[in-house]
Amino acid sequence: MSKFYKLAIIGSGNVAWHLARALEDAGHYITDIYSRRLSTGRELARQLYDTNVVNSLDLRNSEAEIFILAISDDNIEHVAQKLKIPAYGIVAHTSGTQPLEVLSEYHENIGIFYPLQTFSKGIAVDLDEVPICIEAKHQSTEKTLTTLGKSISSEVYTVHSDDRKILHIAAVFACNFSNHMLTISEEILESHEIDFSLLHPLIVETINKALSAGPLQSQTGPARRKDNDTIKQHLKILRYRPEFRKIYKLLSENLKDHYS
Amino acid sequence: MSKFYKLAIIGSGNVAWHLARALEDAGHYITDIYSRRLSTGRELARQLYDTNVVNSLDLRNSEAEIFILAISDDNIEHVAQKLKIPAYGIVAHTSGTQPLEVLSEYHENIGIFYPLQTFSKGIAVDLDEVPICIEAKHQSTEKTLTTLGKSISSEVYTVHSDDRKILHIAAVFACNFSNHMLTISEEILESHEIDFSLLHPLIVETINKALSAGPLQSQTGPARRKDNDTIKQHLKILRYRPEFRKIYKLLSENLKDHYS
Repeated sequence: MSKFYKLAIIGSGNVAWHLARALEDAGHYITDIYSRRLSTGRELARQLYDTNVVNSLDLRNSEAEIFILAISDDNIEHVAQKLKIPAYGIVAHTSGTQPLEVLSEYHENIGIFYPLQTFSKGIAVDLDEVPICIEAKHQSTEKTLTTLGKSISSEVYTVHSDDRKILHIAAVFACNFSNHMLTISEEILESHEIDFSLLHPLIVETINKALSAGPLQSQTGPARRKDNDTIKQHLKILRYRPEFRKIYKLLSENLKDHYS
Repeated sequence: MSKFYKLAIIGSGNVAWHLARALEDAGHYITDIYSRRLSTGRELARQLYDTNVVNSLDLRNSEAEIFILAISDDNIEHVAQKLKIPAYGIVAHTSGTQPLEVLSEYHENIGIFYPLQTFSKGIAVDLDEVPICIEAKHQSTEKTLTTLGKSISSEVYTVHSDDRKILHIAAVFACNFSNHMLTISEEILESHEIDFSLLHPLIVETINKALSAGPLQSQTGPARRKDNDTIKQHLKILRYRPEFRKIYKLLSENLKDHYS
């Protein structure tokens, strides 16, 4: 039997939008939305069934059982400190980088409810396949947050802080750094008046292959082939952007070592 | 009015498979497949309507008007030298890295017909959106290859060798290097017994955003935010893999510079 919770969402940004709507769709009741600016809170509440919009963090009279902090990393501790809730309430933040401890001085039933995804306002994301990483101080809280997670996603995991840090480092490589490789690629093309969109189909297929066959197996290119003539030629052309040349050199060397 | 050509495909690898089938579907006639090993050539020919399979490069009696070299970079010059064709025939290679000149000593009507995509046997790719880069020695050849390209793709461009080199460098960053970032990510997770598939939804969404909003605009993460505490923490954790640490450091520094 499913269990439905009464929830307050603290925040009205991208994570708040996606979580609030997914949780309501799953049958939970969003009692309150807290937003510093009432207008953005009301915008979100309009998408929901029956939700109060508040701009005070004194939520001692809220019906909610779980208070989800969907706010930026820098604000979590400050908001946790100001937040007043009923004694039985659970407070969970949604950050991949902040430890559980940022909540512990101010609340007892604390946890993390971290969806491993990047959200943009207005672009629907199917949460069902998004991993949700759970951590909690008490087992009962962990159980509640896991149940909540399973109501919106089929991928719910208990991930303790040390592993969450490793996940974050891995995400920096897989997302931030690979995205930066696209930025450099675009800038190289732009400086030669070639349109970046020419590479779009190749990029999409490269990522598809990496995720199906594994990136180690699907690698191609001059460094993988140890084609030193091509690498030298490329380094020569890249002299006009020494910082890109440095990156090309380091990554080619690392790639060659990796496959030797 | 469409123009249909008679074509010979030299090679029976991934590029040969995809091109032969797309070209036949577009109405052209694949008269011959050359394959060093008759068996793999026959495998491909079975997918086609009415195609000879040969393992001799003496194709002077072939009906084909265009001879497409869909073979590995290292073999192009050698095969071009051995290839005998009717005097009016066009010889085009499909490589993104080899210059036109590798053909010029042996043939007169030469060109490049380079589909900017990575192909895997058995995985269908919709060629319609794949850019095809054309280059030719004579204008008449360029026109023929452009017409041929347009029959299978809506993205056909004349790209001269210098720009093709730039495209290749950009593809190394956008594809090979971003794929290597995924490899490193996977290895970091594996060494902590965390499954790489946890990051798949995040990777897919990151690439989607980069291709729609542009990678420069869509960048996130600690280096983008100039969050030096997190960067320091990550570098400390990465001490167990100095080569990954070096890459993390260089890319974070470059990212910070890039957004300052």
